[in-house]
Order: sequence, then structure tokens, then C-alpha cells
Amino acid sequence: MTGSVSHANEGFAEKAIAYSRDVYCGHGKIEILPKVGASSLEDMAVAYTPGVAHVVQHVLASPDKLDEVTARGNMIALVTDGTAVLGLGDVGPKAAIPVMEGKAVMFKCLAGIDCMPLCLDAKGIDRFCDTICALEPSFSGINIEDVASPHCFEIVSQLEERLSIPVLHDDQFGTATVVTAAVINSLKLTGKKTKDVTVVVNGVGAAGTASIRMLEALGVGNIIAVDKKGILDPGDRGLPRHFREIASRTNAGSVSGKLCDAMKGADCFVGLSTGGIVDENMVRSMSKDPVVLALANPEPEIRPDKAMAAGAAVTASGRFDYPNHCNNVLAFPGLMRGALVSKARRIDIRMCLAAAHKIAQLGEPVRADHILPSPLDLNVHAAVADAVAAEAVAVGLARADVTPGYAGRTSQEFSRHAINHVASLPKL
Amino acid sequence: MTGSVSHANEGFAEKAIAYSRDVYCGHGKIEILPKVGASSLEDMAVAYTPGVAHVVQHVLASPDKLDEVTARGNMIALVTDGTAVLGLGDVGPKAAIPVMEGKAVMFKCLAGIDCMPLCLDAKGIDRFCDTICALEPSFSGINIEDVASPHCFEIVSQLEERLSIPVLHDDQFGTATVVTAAVINSLKLTGKKTKDVTVVVNGVGAAGTASIRMLEALGVGNIIAVDKKGILDPGDRGLPRHFREIASRTNAGSVSGKLCDAMKGADCFVGLSTGGIVDENMVRSMSKDPVVLALANPEPEIRPDKAMAAGAAVTASGRFDYPNHCNNVLAFPGLMRGALVSKARRIDIRMCLAAAHKIAQLGEPVRADHILPSPLDLNVHAAVADAVAAEAVAVGLARADVTPGYAGRTSQEFSRHAINHVASLPKL
Repeated sequence: MTGSVSHANEGFAEKAIAYSRDVYCGHGKIEILPKVGASSLEDMAVAYTPGVAHVVQHVLASPDKLDEVTARGNMIALVTDGTAVLGLGDVGPKAAIPVMEGKAVMFKCLAGIDCMPLCLDAKGIDRFCDTICALEPSFSGINIEDVASPHCFEIVSQLEERLSIPVLHDDQFGTATVVTAAVINSLKLTGKKTKDVTVVVNGVGAAGTASIRMLEALGVGNIIAVDKKGILDPGDRGLPRHFREIASRTNAGSVSGKLCDAMKGADCFVGLSTGGIVDENMVRSMSKDPVVLALANPEPEIRPDKAMAAGAAVTASGRFDYPNHCNNVLAFPGLMRGALVSKARRIDIRMCLAAAHKIAQLGEPVRADHILPSPLDLNVHAAVADAVAAEAVAVGLARADVTPGYAGRTSQEFSRHAINHVASLPKL
Repeated sequence: MTGSVSHANEGFAEKAIAYSRDVYCGHGKIEILPKVGASSLEDMAVAYTPGVAHVVQHVLASPDKLDEVTARGNMIALVTDGTAVLGLGDVGPKAAIPVMEGKAVMFKCLAGIDCMPLCLDAKGIDRFCDTICALEPSFSGINIEDVASPHCFEIVSQLEERLSIPVLHDDQFGTATVVTAAVINSLKLTGKKTKDVTVVVNGVGAAGTASIRMLEALGVGNIIAVDKKGILDPGDRGLPRHFREIASRTNAGSVSGKLCDAMKGADCFVGLSTGGIVDENMVRSMSKDPVVLALANPEPEIRPDKAMAAGAAVTASGRFDYPNHCNNVLAFPGLMRGALVSKARRIDIRMCLAAAHKIAQLGEPVRADHILPSPLDLNVHAAVADAVAAEAVAVGLARADVTPGYAGRTSQEFSRHAINHVASLPKL
């Protein structure tokens, strides 16, 4: 992988802009295409009026057929308010559109899901949630994206309360799923038991909070949560509520201090914070065979090569140009496909954990430079979709019968259509 | 045209449902497709992260480039609350989806516009408008569809006030544009002058109200507006406000009574009401060479053959199986394309009138069985788009320079891509 993609240079920026501007009639990276034509009066009569009246009557007579005869059954909304876009912060809804389109490309190419980016001018939790609730009739799922923490927590729980379709906050549970898979396989490699290890999670935003929850659910023995001011202290009355909750559940050894204090003797570092804040001495202070997952973007908390030089047994980062590229694109396509096929009421942490175990399994045989499978492999997303759908059934959240393998076959069939379509377009 | 499409039989209903259920991965008549792929790590890096960060920075540096580098520049929302769907009434937002998808197919195939159906669970004028305003960052235009009258009037004027992108209420101005074109060409055929004729408009809902406004703008000498209770009477205090406004502007001769009284001596009947309410005697009571546009769906106010037998010089209906099929599909693709290309602030009645004149011109040479051009002809939508864009510039509503012919070329180029795509799909 190393060296195959170079991101920092001028040519790369130009290419990214060209991908968004110059392909196939211009205007971005996605388009809405018909599956039927309007080339004859009969076409028009069937596909438009009066034909559609018959389809409406069909739906009125059998409401459960709606998702079959409309795009709704395969359609999700990718919703943001643009308050926390990548590492760029609150750029607003319009400037967030390119990111959402990129993600829509991934949803369709990797799991065959129709994904409509909706960048909302809707400040405030209630206005944001009200808008999404009004949109519910047209969609089978919602992916919340790039909404600032801690607003995002209340938004997701309010939406889960109000909507009857699944809500994925990818920055929370997509990321946490991949982090958990990486931890599972790193521990296989270092031969340590989940219940015996100490994991330091640095950065308690959306991704960090969800990762802590998932690592708890995985059975990690001791988690130490660290944010900008240091190790979260349950006695600190000045902490926001969700920080205090995390502090009260974690840090079994009651360690206090800064990040460097947390890392002393720890088995695993999970960085979801900011670039360059971990040095070699901090890695050297960890236990034997430490695992360093430095996932800040674009610059990791510590570069993988420096961490390895300081004794790390396994490293991972958010960068394509190092081994063990850790990106939620491994999780979100299959998570959503599994939820859609099972018509899950919501996306539960148990479904995410099933996805994490499946991703970890697909990463075998594990090597220090290979703890995760490739997101380019459609079989991965298909297998994750099947695991998620099966878990939705198992935990009683499914509202559709799911034949084993059906979610994965759908994922692959639909994504291949998208891939073939792209291949048929004129090259840039 | 006659007999080429048969709508009433069982086979037609089945075919309409199959068009919505069985094509290309199932799930309706539209899908969201990528223009770029995710087949290599480099693809992913360019099309998703970290590539999209460069596109965001490009937009932040040059906000006017947004519509070039995202789908927004060619993307409209087709929004309904499902309160007045076809002739079926308040079926709710979910059952409205098939209709909206049919219309999205027409927008893309006929004018190359990406059209996202959004069926809102948003009762009440303010909630409906608030939702659309929150969606504004993602779209360059809004088509309001199948919203009940009189709510729709306040919704459109509130949206025009609050949004900076154009709003087309197709049931008002799409229909009125085609009605006006049909009146223009009918009068050419019968040799009567616009300022001398009396036009009876029966049905003062969304379409009727807008048609009256456009016929006034066209210069029709006398309009008589009729609703369920008879000719609108400006002195009737019980009338809703918008009816009283219309009554006060129309009916120069102060005729009172029922529809049959209005039609006596009239030159043109425009029916936007309900099937079967006009009989042969009423047609016989009209002036010499009467024009009968009986546009109720699916059953006209009077069947064209009966109207001709009673002496009509020209007839038109909403049916594919009679000559002079009068459907707003002749207008809405070009209206919206012209508004998008000119980046019009709003869609003004003058732009609609320009579209009506262009449609009428394209219907020449006029014959009794041919007063309108075919909606299958892409040149028609292209020419309408050019006329609308030019008028937007002329009346000062455009926010982009428009080279003559550019709107039409864009319309044709983009629609051909959609048509080629459909042709490449496996046949049903």
C-alpha cells in the first residue's frame, strides 16, 4: 500500500476537485438516474400518469409493498448540519456537500445503497431532529454525519425515540466498530486476553465515546478515558454530563493525571484526538508489546513508523500510506445494509459488535502489518451485512425475515450494478 | 396516437406496478448512482477521504464554485405532503412516492435534471415550509407537488419569501403554462383575438387559479371563473379570500349563475375540475367555433368526441388516447431547466408566459387535432428552457450570465445521458 497514494501534493488536490467537477455532465460525484424511460407515449403513460395512480392504489391496498415498488426500500438519507466536517470544523451545510457525496459513492459502490446527501440549515437539536422526522416517509434509514459533539448524542437518542427507521451515527458507531475490530485482532497478535488489558482512549468526542462503550461491551478489563484536560475524573464537577458518566464507569485503577500518566503500563492506545500528541517515550512507557492505534486525521497522534521504532507491536492509523489503514468505510456499508435488509428498528450496539467480530475474523490470518481486511473487497461488506442482519434477528430488532446470506447477496448484486455503471462512463 | 395506449385494463395496472418493482435491482423507478468508483485505494482517497477535504477547502475559498463541484447545481427536490395526489386526494406522504418517482423520471429524461422526491410528514403550512427551508443548502430548485389547495398558495408565497432558490408549484404554473399555450394556438386556429374572447375557467383550485392569472397576463378580454357553487360572485362574503380576489378581477360582464350560464356565448372552456359535468347542450350554447379544453383526469369534463359532435372547433384533454393531449410534462422540465441555468431567484409568471408562447410556437403549424407539440421531443424542452432562461435575464431575475442556447444544450446533453443509461439496462 505504501506510496501508492500521495495526498499532500498539489496534483492530488487538483485531482480530487476534478473528480467532483469534470465527470459525466459535471456537477459533483452522484446523480439521480431513472431505471425506466420516457421515449414513447406508452412509456410515459406507464412510468408517469396515469400509470402511477395504479401504483399508489397498490400501496394503499398493501402498505407493506411500499419498499418494493419505490426506491424507499433501498434509500437512506445522509444528513449533516456541517458542524464538524472532517478535521475542518464547523464549515456549514453547503461546504459539507462534497464530503457527503464522497460517502454516498461509498455506500452505493460498496453495499449498493442509494444514499441521498441532505445538508441541513437547521441549527439546534430540535430543529435538526424535526426536519429529519419530517423526511422519514421517503427513507428506510438515516446516517447522521459530521454533527458536532456533544449535540450529536442527544440528536441520535432523540431520533431513535421518534423514528421507526434505523439511525446510524457513523462517527460514533462506524468508527467504534472498526476500532473494536482492530483491538480484537491486535490482542490476538499479542496473545493478551481482553479482560486483562488496559486500553487508553484519548479523545472523548463522538468516536471516542462510542469506542469506549463498544470496548466495554467487548469485555475490555480496564479503560482509561482521556480528554484535552487529562484523565477524566468522576469527581470533577466541571465536566459535562456525558464525560462524568464515562468517568464513573471507567478507570478501575483510579489513575489521575495527563495522557502520559494514563499510558504508563497500558496495553493499548486508541487515539481519536489530534495529531502529534504522543511521543516515543510515552510508547516506551506502555506494557510489553503495546498496541498503538493512532487514528487522528490527517496527522496521527504518532506516526506508525515512530511508534514501531519505540517498541509498538502493532500500529494502525487513518492514513492510506501506512499499513493497517483504519477507516470506518470498513463498517458503515455493511452495518446499514444489514439494518435495511432486516428492517431493523434501530442499529443496536450488539449489531455493531457483531460487525466488529466479523471484520476481525475477515482480517485473519493476522500479521503485524495486516490486522484488518481490505475495504475494496465486496465480500467483506457482504459478510458484515449478513452478520448485522443475523444479529438484528437474534436480538429481536428485525422486522423482516432474513434468509442467511440474503443481505450479503443483495449488497454484492446492487454494488456490482453501480460499479458496472461507473465503468461504462467516459473516463476523465 | 389514438388507441396506442390503453389505460383502463388490468394489464396496464400490472405493467405500471412491474415498472416500479421489477426493474434493475427492484425498489422503484429511480436510483442514486455514483459518477466515480471505489475500486482502488487511490479511488477511495480521491473520491472520499482525504480527497474530499480538498474539495471542501476549494468551496470555502470560492463559494460560487459549489454548484460546479457538487450535484447541487443540477439537483432539485420534488416535495409533497401527499394531501392532493392526482385525483386520489389525501393519500399521505408514503403513498405519494410512486407519483413523485414517475415525475423524477420525467425531469431527468426530458431535461436532464436530478430530482429527489421528498415526501414529507409535515402537516401545517409552517412545518412544511420550515422543513423545505432547512433543506435549501442541498438543492438548486424546489418543485412543490400535489399539495392541497388553498394551503398550496400560502406555502408557495412563504417559500418564495424565505428561499433564495426558485420554487415551481407545477400544479399551478406548469399546468397553467400548458393551458395558456393551448389557448394561444386554439385562438390562432379559430381566428379570434385574445382581447375579444371570453374564457370560462371551471375549477378554481391550484391549476385553475394559476391559469386565470396567466390568461389575464396573456391579455384575455373576459374570464369567467366558476367553482362548485357556480360563477364566483365578488359580493359573496362566504367565499374564501383567494376566491373573492379572483371574483373581483374577473367576469367583466357580471354574469351570475351556474356553469351552464357562464358557458352561454363563451369562446373557450377550460375545465380543471371533475369528469362528466359538461354536456353537449352547454357546448352548443357557446359562441361560434368554440374551444373546449376539458382537462379533468382521468375522465374529462366532456369527452372530446362528444364535444366535437356538439360543434367544438378544437378540443383537448388530459388523455393520451385523444388528440391534443394536454399535460404539464410539456412545461415543467423546461421551466425548471431554464430557472436552473439562469440561477433565477424565483420562477416568475413572465417566465411561464415565455414558456407558453414557446410551446405554442413549437405546436405550429396548428391543426384542430394538433395544437401542441409532443413532450417526447427533446427539442421542445430545450427550446422552452432557452426561452425561460432568456426571460429570467430580461426581467432581472437571473443570477448567472446565460449564453443563448446554453440552457437548451444542457437540457439535451444531460437528458441524453439518462436516456442512454436506461437503454443500457436489462429489459424487463
